[in-house]
Amino acid sequence: MTDTWHTAVTDIQPNRVAVRGYDIADLMGRVSFGAAVYLILTGNLPDEKTGRLLDAILVSSIDHGATPPSCLAARTVASTGASLSQSVAAGIMSINKHHGGAIQDCALALGNLLSDAESNNQSLDEAATALVAHIKSTGSRISGFGHRVHRKDPRTARLFELAAEAGLTEDKARHVAAARAVERAFAATGKPLPINVDGAIGAILADLGIDPAVFNGFFMIARVPGLIAHVTEEQTRERPMRRIDPVNHAYDGPSPRSLNESK
Amino acid sequence: MTDTWHTAVTDIQPNRVAVRGYDIADLMGRVSFGAAVYLILTGNLPDEKTGRLLDAILVSSIDHGATPPSCLAARTVASTGASLSQSVAAGIMSINKHHGGAIQDCALALGNLLSDAESNNQSLDEAATALVAHIKSTGSRISGFGHRVHRKDPRTARLFELAAEAGLTEDKARHVAAARAVERAFAATGKPLPINVDGAIGAILADLGIDPAVFNGFFMIARVPGLIAHVTEEQTRERPMRRIDPVNHAYDGPSPRSLNESK
Amino acid sequence: MTDTWHTAVTDIQPNRVAVRGYDIADLMGRVSFGAAVYLILTGNLPDEKTGRLLDAILVSSIDHGATPPSCLAARTVASTGASLSQSVAAGIMSINKHHGGAIQDCALALGNLLSDAESNNQSLDEAATALVAHIKSTGSRISGFGHRVHRKDPRTARLFELAAEAGLTEDKARHVAAARAVERAFAATGKPLPINVDGAIGAILADLGIDPAVFNGFFMIARVPGLIAHVTEEQTRERPMRRIDPVNHAYDGPSPRSLNESK
Amino acid sequence: MTDTWHTAVTDIQPNRVAVRGYDIADLMGRVSFGAAVYLILTGNLPDEKTGRLLDAILVSSIDHGATPPSCLAARTVASTGASLSQSVAAGIMSINKHHGGAIQDCALALGNLLSDAESNNQSLDEAATALVAHIKSTGSRISGFGHRVHRKDPRTARLFELAAEAGLTEDKARHVAAARAVERAFAATGKPLPINVDGAIGAILADLGIDPAVFNGFFMIARVPGLIAHVTEEQTRERPMRRIDPVNHAYDGPSPRSLNESK
Repeated sequence: MTDTWHTAVTDIQPNRVAVRGYDIADLMGRVSFGAAVYLILTGNLPDEKTGRLLDAILVSSIDHGATPPSCLAARTVASTGASLSQSVAAGIMSINKHHGGAIQDCALALGNLLSDAESNNQSLDEAATALVAHIKSTGSRISGFGHRVHRKDPRTARLFELAAEAGLTEDKARHVAAARAVERAFAATGKPLPINVDGAIGAILADLGIDPAVFNGFFMIARVPGLIAHVTEEQTRERPMRRIDPVNHAYDGPSPRSLNESK
Repeated sequence: MTDTWHTAVTDIQPNRVAVRGYDIADLMGRVSFGAAVYLILTGNLPDEKTGRLLDAILVSSIDHGATPPSCLAARTVASTGASLSQSVAAGIMSINKHHGGAIQDCALALGNLLSDAESNNQSLDEAATALVAHIKSTGSRISGFGHRVHRKDPRTARLFELAAEAGLTEDKARHVAAARAVERAFAATGKPLPINVDGAIGAILADLGIDPAVFNGFFMIARVPGLIAHVTEEQTRERPMRRIDPVNHAYDGPSPRSLNESK
Repeated sequence: MTDTWHTAVTDIQPNRVAVRGYDIADLMGRVSFGAAVYLILTGNLPDEKTGRLLDAILVSSIDHGATPPSCLAARTVASTGASLSQSVAAGIMSINKHHGGAIQDCALALGNLLSDAESNNQSLDEAATALVAHIKSTGSRISGFGHRVHRKDPRTARLFELAAEAGLTEDKARHVAAARAVERAFAATGKPLPINVDGAIGAILADLGIDPAVFNGFFMIARVPGLIAHVTEEQTRERPMRRIDPVNHAYDGPSPRSLNESK
Repeated sequence: MTDTWHTAVTDIQPNRVAVRGYDIADLMGRVSFGAAVYLILTGNLPDEKTGRLLDAILVSSIDHGATPPSCLAARTVASTGASLSQSVAAGIMSINKHHGGAIQDCALALGNLLSDAESNNQSLDEAATALVAHIKSTGSRISGFGHRVHRKDPRTARLFELAAEAGLTEDKARHVAAARAVERAFAATGKPLPINVDGAIGAILADLGIDPAVFNGFFMIARVPGLIAHVTEEQTRERPMRRIDPVNHAYDGPSPRSLNESK
């Protein structure tokens, strides 16, 4: 026999399930899924605006089309006749340092910038200018800035807007402020490199005080619905074992429509 | 070179990401993650109450402690020094016919009951009585009824309450009505066997008109945050390669607390 | 506490590891890996020629270049910075009904042909002619015959040669005989469709009396080294997150060489 | 369209499959699977005795009963109704730093010992004595020495015997010699800590000149048959969703038997 071990996540009693102390039946209908995610990962319930921000973070990353490796891995496995759980798992397994990892890496880089500014007695803009100069001279790069497709990622602006509504204004939100300073420093070189959606999520999660070890987890949670949609589409629309071109694909879903039309 | 192929999930243009036609930046902050999940899986946005119902469904299944095989598989893999994505994937891979599958199986059984009632010109109660008699006499079982731990699952009552608020009253929600009829038929035998949370979710998703092929997907989406919490706990709190007892564990997290305290 | 449960695979005692009753230290250096695979999957040691046949089956499927979905899934996951075990697992997860599954499906189809011939009092050639006529008239297909690349798969002839050396001559090896009859029946239609390597392995494993439930397992065992080679190559030779074209790739390894040169 | 990319593993031509330049049909029946593994991972065919050594390494690790996390993860996933490939993949995913990783870690530690001895102008025994003293004084440990179950692992002695037969005698096999020196140094402290099977494999693979990045790969290749045997047993012998005790299990397979009986 092995010893009894302990978990602080969920208490299971007959007729009672309590996550981090809260009866799950009380949470249902009263908090959004984003708020429940925050609860289970941090141990505390967020206020309502922060809960809404968490939902927005999850919504922002729910899918990015057929090109990301998580989608291609999931579709490739799905095309062999795999089950849904197996196909989705293959997608999840693609979320690593080079795919999704910018969320954590950007937060760490911004954290280092904040420490440097403090220990060097610099303003954020001075520290960011020094960092960007270093990046330019060494040919290195900083995670979370720039994007293969988007020059001005629409998701980023919206995230910062919602972060501000949730009280993460630049004077309080140090990582967001650092990200803005880096953007200004890049712009001053004549080659602007705006923060991307991964970078914005990393800055915001860091300012919310969340453990960096689970940052990639937010991306996994967000992306599972997209993976399910792609796996289902692959298995209903395509023939098994086809060769899946990672570039030559096109969108043929609904035309652009606005929220007002539908509600 | 391979031919161009098509996807109807998400359109990626420079500076624009549109899920099923909706600009993702418009969705952020305006719809909950549950509503976005409904959108990406069905192609349409739900109304606000249905969106809230979807969030409640996801919240209801966010975790069920350390005993389910998905949690044990994730912890076992995590204990070998695996990455977060690898450990979570092992958990997802455990969501199959016997774990989570009751959601789909119950919906199918209730659908069959509805067809039988119609083709036999029976009331739902008559058809359910016949079904339960058949189950009793053959020693077979029906997915989605009864639970190893809970006699009266608190999540079920709350789900049906929220379903009613979203307009899924028994006269419109045929699968929910069928589930209730089966409960009454079991109760009439003197051995009540209430619907469990999987069965309730299956009935509600069926009444929302969602494709049964993705029912298990809702459970996967819901459970990822719980898996992340357990994997993180395993890797920070336990020694590598420990032998994980599936039964001898206890909860030592926060004491019971109510939503009112915190907000 | 849970009850004690039992396993008949391997006995672990202090200073003794015994697989299906054989001390593993006795097996080492005396039987090939193919023979040990046969032992652990069937419970019995093969004779030496059958052991060599098993090794040949494993060698025949060790790799098939960069195109199969198992290779592409493993490389896609590897390109995100995944660990070796995670990348290999993604490859394994692609071995399903449509990839590798022909081994089992062909064995079952040949088994059905054998039953049909017997119950209809037909020769194998008569039964095969009827089967091929049915396939032609209904536009259906039979697993294990034909190949996307090879018209005359060199591995197949060699496998049957080694099977004959191991005593699986056509009079004893009923599934192999059935496969030959199907080949003759296709040839008689003027459109020859030779058995492929999956079909040959399926026929031979069936004639060796192995449980069809593990046929795909032989393919998994065989392919892991190939997956490891591709994952290592991907992570050392290519940049992360590249888009992996499933068709536009070429071989640039060692030129053709013969066994005699090297030994 | 993406650019053509290259692979040096396997050349696929119509009617020809060549692994690292060798026609696979030539390899079949002439080299063991262990030799083919060496070929695909290193690019060269081993001589016959080294090929036999490779087979012995794979045989030595084919299974270790129901307790290792790879077996428990595979059985846990299998118990949910998963497919064979999914269950085996979960097992593979458990082969990481803390499970199997000792193969690579021990080889690296022995490599460091060899460097230290050289740069300090010490004999191997002097360097090993210093290393063991350091381990004892700091309470640290060295991978690949000691075992939870075996005091004198029977597989280790046999591996070194076969390595010597293949020409890896201590004067040529520097990592093996270093391992022996560490054993002697531990014995001299009065608390012997013999090298275990992982450590022995690591030392031998290093002396064979194999890239440490694929050492864990040998363990994966070796263990897949064991995982398949356990998954099959789980799905045929046990009820779904049982709680799998990692300790309370017993062997009930064939009694001890010797190779001579069967062949």
